[in-house]
Amino acid sequence: MILILKKNPDMKACEELKEWLGKQHVTVKETVGKERTIWGLLGDTSEIDADRLKALKIVESVKRMEEPYKKASRHLHEEDTKIRVGDVTIGGEELCVIAGPCSVETKDQILKVAESVRRSGANILRGGAFKPRTSPYSFQGKQEEGIRLLEMAKEQTGLPIVTEIMEISQLPLFENVDIIQVGARNMQNFALLKELGMQHKPVLLKRGMNATYEEWLMSAEYIMAEGNEQVILCERGIRTFETYTRNTLDLTAVPVLKKLTHLPIIVDPSHGTGRADLVPDMALASVASGAHGVMIEVHPDPEHAWSDGEQSISTEEFAKLNPRLQGLRQWM
Amino acid sequence: MILILKKNPDMKACEELKEWLGKQHVTVKETVGKERTIWGLLGDTSEIDADRLKALKIVESVKRMEEPYKKASRHLHEEDTKIRVGDVTIGGEELCVIAGPCSVETKDQILKVAESVRRSGANILRGGAFKPRTSPYSFQGKQEEGIRLLEMAKEQTGLPIVTEIMEISQLPLFENVDIIQVGARNMQNFALLKELGMQHKPVLLKRGMNATYEEWLMSAEYIMAEGNEQVILCERGIRTFETYTRNTLDLTAVPVLKKLTHLPIIVDPSHGTGRADLVPDMALASVASGAHGVMIEVHPDPEHAWSDGEQSISTEEFAKLNPRLQGLRQWM
Amino acid sequence: MILILKKNPDMKACEELKEWLGKQHVTVKETVGKERTIWGLLGDTSEIDADRLKALKIVESVKRMEEPYKKASRHLHEEDTKIRVGDVTIGGEELCVIAGPCSVETKDQILKVAESVRRSGANILRGGAFKPRTSPYSFQGKQEEGIRLLEMAKEQTGLPIVTEIMEISQLPLFENVDIIQVGARNMQNFALLKELGMQHKPVLLKRGMNATYEEWLMSAEYIMAEGNEQVILCERGIRTFETYTRNTLDLTAVPVLKKLTHLPIIVDPSHGTGRADLVPDMALASVASGAHGVMIEVHPDPEHAWSDGEQSISTEEFAKLNPRLQGLRQWM
Amino acid sequence: MILILKKNPDMKACEELKEWLGKQHVTVKETVGKERTIWGLLGDTSEIDADRLKALKIVESVKRMEEPYKKASRHLHEEDTKIRVGDVTIGGEELCVIAGPCSVETKDQILKVAESVRRSGANILRGGAFKPRTSPYSFQGKQEEGIRLLEMAKEQTGLPIVTEIMEISQLPLFENVDIIQVGARNMQNFALLKELGMQHKPVLLKRGMNATYEEWLMSAEYIMAEGNEQVILCERGIRTFETYTRNTLDLTAVPVLKKLTHLPIIVDPSHGTGRADLVPDMALASVASGAHGVMIEVHPDPEHAWSDGEQSISTEEFAKLNPRLQGLRQWM
Repeated sequence: MILILKKNPDMKACEELKEWLGKQHVTVKETVGKERTIWGLLGDTSEIDADRLKALKIVESVKRMEEPYKKASRHLHEEDTKIRVGDVTIGGEELCVIAGPCSVETKDQILKVAESVRRSGANILRGGAFKPRTSPYSFQGKQEEGIRLLEMAKEQTGLPIVTEIMEISQLPLFENVDIIQVGARNMQNFALLKELGMQHKPVLLKRGMNATYEEWLMSAEYIMAEGNEQVILCERGIRTFETYTRNTLDLTAVPVLKKLTHLPIIVDPSHGTGRADLVPDMALASVASGAHGVMIEVHPDPEHAWSDGEQSISTEEFAKLNPRLQGLRQWM
Repeated sequence: MILILKKNPDMKACEELKEWLGKQHVTVKETVGKERTIWGLLGDTSEIDADRLKALKIVESVKRMEEPYKKASRHLHEEDTKIRVGDVTIGGEELCVIAGPCSVETKDQILKVAESVRRSGANILRGGAFKPRTSPYSFQGKQEEGIRLLEMAKEQTGLPIVTEIMEISQLPLFENVDIIQVGARNMQNFALLKELGMQHKPVLLKRGMNATYEEWLMSAEYIMAEGNEQVILCERGIRTFETYTRNTLDLTAVPVLKKLTHLPIIVDPSHGTGRADLVPDMALASVASGAHGVMIEVHPDPEHAWSDGEQSISTEEFAKLNPRLQGLRQWM
Repeated sequence: MILILKKNPDMKACEELKEWLGKQHVTVKETVGKERTIWGLLGDTSEIDADRLKALKIVESVKRMEEPYKKASRHLHEEDTKIRVGDVTIGGEELCVIAGPCSVETKDQILKVAESVRRSGANILRGGAFKPRTSPYSFQGKQEEGIRLLEMAKEQTGLPIVTEIMEISQLPLFENVDIIQVGARNMQNFALLKELGMQHKPVLLKRGMNATYEEWLMSAEYIMAEGNEQVILCERGIRTFETYTRNTLDLTAVPVLKKLTHLPIIVDPSHGTGRADLVPDMALASVASGAHGVMIEVHPDPEHAWSDGEQSISTEEFAKLNPRLQGLRQWM
Repeated sequence: MILILKKNPDMKACEELKEWLGKQHVTVKETVGKERTIWGLLGDTSEIDADRLKALKIVESVKRMEEPYKKASRHLHEEDTKIRVGDVTIGGEELCVIAGPCSVETKDQILKVAESVRRSGANILRGGAFKPRTSPYSFQGKQEEGIRLLEMAKEQTGLPIVTEIMEISQLPLFENVDIIQVGARNMQNFALLKELGMQHKPVLLKRGMNATYEEWLMSAEYIMAEGNEQVILCERGIRTFETYTRNTLDLTAVPVLKKLTHLPIIVDPSHGTGRADLVPDMALASVASGAHGVMIEVHPDPEHAWSDGEQSISTEEFAKLNPRLQGLRQWM
């Protein structure tokens, strides 16, 4: 950590700060320039709160040299984290394809989709039971019953299932769920993250709509700090000024995150674009950018989907797309 | 609601849709143009999900004429909502000034601030007990003890208190809290909003960092739909590309929200700018824009604040600022 | 075009507007609902200024059914525009690869790069002669001499050249330049666009840092409206809140633009990311998204580049990357 | 300037860099930490290009301690710049109010507005002659004739005039124009800025729609570096995700810019919001934030304005607003 002091800082305040830093086992290496004095802080500064230093009158700015996350950092854990779910490994050489409807609607619907995407080669089944909706008057998901229907689809097809949690008290319902999803709106629901950190189950952590890479990794760190290191990151688009698409898919997140962290990263081009006609091209681009997997909304009849029909591709379209994605992964 | 159909829509699908709309007690008034056909939907369309219509193959676009919120809407509730807390009315002619530290730190600290801001004319005391922090390694607030300290300050000064809730299970601790705050990161924590909708206590709802005005009002609607109509909106800055300030304070939210809703709106220039030296000017601008109140971080010793010291003004600065704010409100 | 009138509109104003529209050869098809009246405007509305209608007291909102661009629109020109430059066709099946340094620096440098990228299979040589720099104190490009050096490189290697124009008065210098580039900062320099519309030479139009797809196409329309229909669109990243990368590359622009327009679209992952280590992955992703080409900054010694060294890959890296890009195009 | 070197930097490259810096009359003060080595650069580093240093393999990051602008910087020019135009001083205690139509339309229109705003106390008349429009098919302004009409209004009312330039070749027409405006889209039209730097006339520099404070000041620096130090900064809103307003007015720019620079700063709430009904509140907020002036679109008949009617207030509304603005300035 590097502190840059203001011009002519108060000497007494400087001494006090040095003393306090000493108590944190951090020593100061001082460089006095003509205009500014710079302090290099030597020692383990991970417990030092940069914001508190910045608030000091004598301090002009603070520069962290280390990432503020530790468990998620590639520096301290060079090898890729690989997460085994069902018969697929997320984070390795294989491409993991998660497919299924936005919402679980009926027994017939979910079984039909599950059977179809399994045949087309999907590795994991998705489906929303608890749905975060902007309006209190919109369909809020089948809730508990939705989870039961997913469990039936899992039993019938053998596909592992992933579904979103919205609240700590729902956790007991997730016993047979293979991957617990945290939605974009809850990326900084810290109470929920801590609770999930105490589970023994992979967590799929979606990026918040306006989260920086660092904030996203800090949210992964919240889970990991409690002991659960099975975190899968999922890019799903950020909010920008563009209104033609629902979000702006940020594929650069893929190579960046692969540098910063050892955790697997997948992409959701369905939410990322909000338009079914853009999903195939952007799914291919996701694979080419190096993503460990993709998550795609698939519906047997997108026109009549109870939510997000606009961004769902049909089971037929998925049957054509998946071999392309797998083929591209092979080519890479 | 207006539907614009695609060119040459499938006639059978059109008939089906008309029939379905009929069952919802909505009738279709059709205009056939050379290029497009337009349907005006007559009747109560508030239960019709625009997204589901948009997913239909025959539909090109859907335009809602009514706001998607009802209880929060100015149209259906012309008079300003006034919320009485202690000796101040939020939403009327008075300017409501909320002041206090970012975090409750010690008994001495909170009593000192409370006493000082009361003397300077503040109406309500703020102070964080549960702190949402980006890093799991940062100070997370004094939690339960923080609330007890706030209660002591309330008893000693007579000031009502406002503090942030992060999780439903914390609710029992908020019994003596006068206003429950929902932070920006939880603006779309729908499970929490629904729960607060069942309380009999004002809720201060901060705008999410990337929330549109409409989404913000929909979150207020989540609370109101459950029965609690005492919602105070608080603008606290949005995230943009600018990095000099912590956020970009959007004061236009004030006159806009006053048109769209009858709920009171206040401004937090401390989070909105992230810099103490900008707070006085922006607090004045907030009042001039028509805000019903401001919320300001005040600390007896900002340099040594445990969180957000950079954006806290001192008790002395607040003592100078508050009469200016009140004077400006008078002048207006 | 559809007009939605305000409740209880002034009848006289309605009559006046209908009369005025009639003079523009536009007829009104009226639908009177319980709450609102809707006018469908029939006829050629392309000359009607939607903003002026919106300002009328009787009008609540205006919805254009047609895109505001005509010559650039896919609707009115279904076939892909193909632009032949040297031995490559931009906009067809081939992948067009443009490579070269950010700035032309010296004769030795540009000849070396040109020779090297030609050997590696690049189709066109890029190099900045006039450099738009944020600071007046930064290197502003070799200007006229830079263009002469590019011409030498063209002569020696046979590669066509593309370079940026900043001002109308520079045009005479561009006689031997094969493609004239308009930079992101000049995307709405309308005087310049009009002038380029009168040239008989392809124009490479970079997307502005905060331009919507529609605004970008309107800028293409400025050029095309004057007669020059050889416009190549280049996605180069937009500005968001993320600071890790220089910009946020928006690859969804590729499939979107291919739907909206018949013009070719290429991607610049160098500016789009600002980091050389991200360029190969994002160049591959660009190709997978369906781009007609990529533009890549290549320098013989990126560490000592006079500008943008951070985002330039070396000639050796390009030699490895280009066959991958071409291979991926083949695979697609 | 501070350089932070990568771990284990190449010694030879370090020596070379030190030597090169020495030649620039900059000396290196080195601090060797356990993990990183830091170089403080002593001497005048204003000519050192930080980007070029950042591209070096041995350098991890570069931190400028000084602002990259000099002539615009408050540090090197403590006193406020005051610009005298007609009978008003921009940048001092007075509030400068600029009013007039978006576009000059007819002789009758401009004379009527000019007369009216003069009577209401406006200091300067605005009016667009060259109009930057997104569409090539929209009204492009009355151009040369527009300037002549402005000159007539100036003669008749005595009000100084401000109008926008779009292209260097238009300069001769601006001889009798008192303040030359550079629009948001041209904020980084560096060729134009340089040319205006050679004029002896105040320049009103609008902020680009996505420009940071620093970039904006660098554009002012382009003008000042050529000798013209009469630059007036004008905040006019930035582009965000919000669509209710045309732009998001960033009033925090006012106190920030007043710290960073000695140049005057004014606010344009008309473009900043895009809605006439929001203009009065936001104009008052602008004055309260400390702005040296405001620029307001006023039209005798906003409904029939040829451009931007939606955001223009009527002459009657302006007659009521201006005394409020002046009164608030007095109160402050």
